[in-house]
Amino acid sequence: MKAYVTLSFALLLCSAAPAQAAPLGTRTVLDNGATLLVAERPGIPMVVMTILLKTGAAADPDGKAGLANLTAVLLTRGTKKHSAQALAEELDFLGASLAVDADHETTTISLTTLTKNLEPALGLLSEVLISPTFPVPELERKRKEIEGGLRSHEEDPGWVAHKAFVEKLYPHHPFGRLVEGQPTTLDTLTQAEVKKFHQTYYRPNNAIIALAGEISQEQAVNLLRTQFAGWQPAAIPPLVWPDSRQSSAERVTLDRKVSQANVILGHAGIARANPDYYTVQVMNYILGGGGFGSRLMDKIREELALVYSVSSSFVARKHPGPFIVGLQTKNASATQAVEESVQVIRRFIEQGASKEELAAAQAYLINSFPLRLVSNRDVAALLPVMEFYELGLDYPDRYPDLIGQVTLEQVHNAAKTYLHPDQLLQVVVADLAEAGLGKQ
Amino acid sequence: MKAYVTLSFALLLCSAAPAQAAPLGTRTVLDNGATLLVAERPGIPMVVMTILLKTGAAADPDGKAGLANLTAVLLTRGTKKHSAQALAEELDFLGASLAVDADHETTTISLTTLTKNLEPALGLLSEVLISPTFPVPELERKRKEIEGGLRSHEEDPGWVAHKAFVEKLYPHHPFGRLVEGQPTTLDTLTQAEVKKFHQTYYRPNNAIIALAGEISQEQAVNLLRTQFAGWQPAAIPPLVWPDSRQSSAERVTLDRKVSQANVILGHAGIARANPDYYTVQVMNYILGGGGFGSRLMDKIREELALVYSVSSSFVARKHPGPFIVGLQTKNASATQAVEESVQVIRRFIEQGASKEELAAAQAYLINSFPLRLVSNRDVAALLPVMEFYELGLDYPDRYPDLIGQVTLEQVHNAAKTYLHPDQLLQVVVADLAEAGLGKQ
Repeated sequence: MKAYVTLSFALLLCSAAPAQAAPLGTRTVLDNGATLLVAERPGIPMVVMTILLKTGAAADPDGKAGLANLTAVLLTRGTKKHSAQALAEELDFLGASLAVDADHETTTISLTTLTKNLEPALGLLSEVLISPTFPVPELERKRKEIEGGLRSHEEDPGWVAHKAFVEKLYPHHPFGRLVEGQPTTLDTLTQAEVKKFHQTYYRPNNAIIALAGEISQEQAVNLLRTQFAGWQPAAIPPLVWPDSRQSSAERVTLDRKVSQANVILGHAGIARANPDYYTVQVMNYILGGGGFGSRLMDKIREELALVYSVSSSFVARKHPGPFIVGLQTKNASATQAVEESVQVIRRFIEQGASKEELAAAQAYLINSFPLRLVSNRDVAALLPVMEFYELGLDYPDRYPDLIGQVTLEQVHNAAKTYLHPDQLLQVVVADLAEAGLGKQ
Repeated sequence: MKAYVTLSFALLLCSAAPAQAAPLGTRTVLDNGATLLVAERPGIPMVVMTILLKTGAAADPDGKAGLANLTAVLLTRGTKKHSAQALAEELDFLGASLAVDADHETTTISLTTLTKNLEPALGLLSEVLISPTFPVPELERKRKEIEGGLRSHEEDPGWVAHKAFVEKLYPHHPFGRLVEGQPTTLDTLTQAEVKKFHQTYYRPNNAIIALAGEISQEQAVNLLRTQFAGWQPAAIPPLVWPDSRQSSAERVTLDRKVSQANVILGHAGIARANPDYYTVQVMNYILGGGGFGSRLMDKIREELALVYSVSSSFVARKHPGPFIVGLQTKNASATQAVEESVQVIRRFIEQGASKEELAAAQAYLINSFPLRLVSNRDVAALLPVMEFYELGLDYPDRYPDLIGQVTLEQVHNAAKTYLHPDQLLQVVVADLAEAGLGKQ
């Protein structure tokens, strides 16, 4: 196996010359301040369009958690020209799909349509974007729907663990609040607040627009000029983020009648712009990102048979997201699984990675990257993210080098710098009696 | 709205001449009996391969439910040349992904890889397919994993409702059993039985192989000849399916501490080969398949505000699958939601559809079809299904006509023929006290 890996890796490096040496798309800044990215990909008569707004739930005012999300989900529920129902029917009629989704840092609007229907579909999208009416009955319905969703989620132990984890890790910080808000804050949201949120943040100078598919840059510019003529820029209020504190080793236990314990371990991680980002990705792949070959899987699943699956990840955004280890195990083995996971992390920090582990991680990350950038949907999703994180349009071409040049020493340093086994926050959602964790 | 719909539909029909008039791929039958379908799609240096075996959980012997699934999930857990771990590591190294999935009627193996790594990836796939070893420790682990999964699912009210529904609708019939089996049958499965299942059904003359991506038919034939040389045909034992009985109006109630009731209504439906299949799809779109515009959504969500979502579907396979209406609602409104849904079905049978409803359904189905057939993955998934159901390689080109020629009268007849409100089996998983349904 070892000989095979080394030989194959040499072969892979030889053939790693990028097949696709052109940038992924073109970039223009429109008169209204929007950044436009176009990837012309002829062949299939369709277009996928993504509008990324650089504002999400982090902009929810104090006590108003859920406002960005409520604004996003109401966007398609009525415009000056169309009721929610009429809008849905017209989109269906075109075979087009339109989705809006808010995250902590961004809001994303996605449109998929046949090229021949792009113009009417864009017309509907522009109504939704520029002149939504946020009717009160729709607001009341969505509020109830979101609250009902939160109640249902409370029955999902994995969700409960995640919520407890972020609340504890990020107190008084946007990442510690659910994008959906909570019943007490949702109950206070008004139509006026939703309208104001929309007027403030849904602005072209706060937007990255990406189109991928059977469309040229010129066509895209002309269409946007016509269809989005009424979209006016405005000053976007800056958002002040609090610092995220370092966590301390602490255990949060939640008692539920479950057959399997849900466990999350973690602490503060890194931002996407961290210069060690690629090294950290390689390091984490070896620790727990890499499925069957990872240190955590080797020990906790293959050797000890405590879990079916265990994985780790660094969630890297504009602001530092968490480092997370997640696993499910029998109630009775929850504490053992936690202890063994911490030991795996400690040993990894001591030892660093092996040559074979590094080669396997690099081969996987380099070889699988182009397979995640295949469809128009993939491209339209990645383009605005590349712009948001300032990665450059040649990012896909540079990726193999960014990963390939990571050294063993860098991986070891990254493990020592970014893994903190003494600061791991532990959340255990389990039948606490069975888990031997007493009751809170 | 009405004028717009009619005008737009005329325009859509005018421009509906197929952009892609060539068949989706080529078809060959190999010497070993396997059917090979290849869609050469240059541009992106990748290939997606799907092998569909025409046998699934329906072939599980009496008392051995779960055998087909256990065989499928163990396929990648060890071969004559590679341990499970080594296999996973080599696939990761190539950046390739390999998945095996059993359903009631079929088993599907999917491989995604860069073209440059196709040969070594196919080598691994051929080992998995032809010489898996099904090691006993892996079998024991998977058995426990599947049993653990079944226990976790018991905590999911939607899953509980679905299980109760199929068990009641299909007694003594493969569709009434879970593909995963159940603990009592799983406990009896042996390595010898898994090996025999594999030897019996994993045969080229029982297989449809599809490749989509940067590969020609000639390359595919040559690669398969080399890599799958050891794959020998054998007689496949025929499977005798019992008839599925008609259901009678019956209510099954299951008491759970849940905030939302999960409701399934349904009865026996149609097979994929039913000549009315396309009419039934259009009819069901109008009844409850079509999101916001559907009869069920209009009444149960928009007018009565009892649910966030309600939908209906006909699951059409080789053998007749069920017609299903699914909804979630507050415990207290469960019985009202059921009664109103039944009324919607009755009225639909009486009235039939309107011209506008038919036009909207046809426009959606015709316009959205090509958007679901975009990526190599989409094509590699559809090709073997087209062969399995004998739809012909020009199916995507014929689809607009198959849907477009459905008439109002046919829709009305299909509603009368295939909807049976007097035979609806009802499953309600709810807090029965809150639902006013007493306790069983």
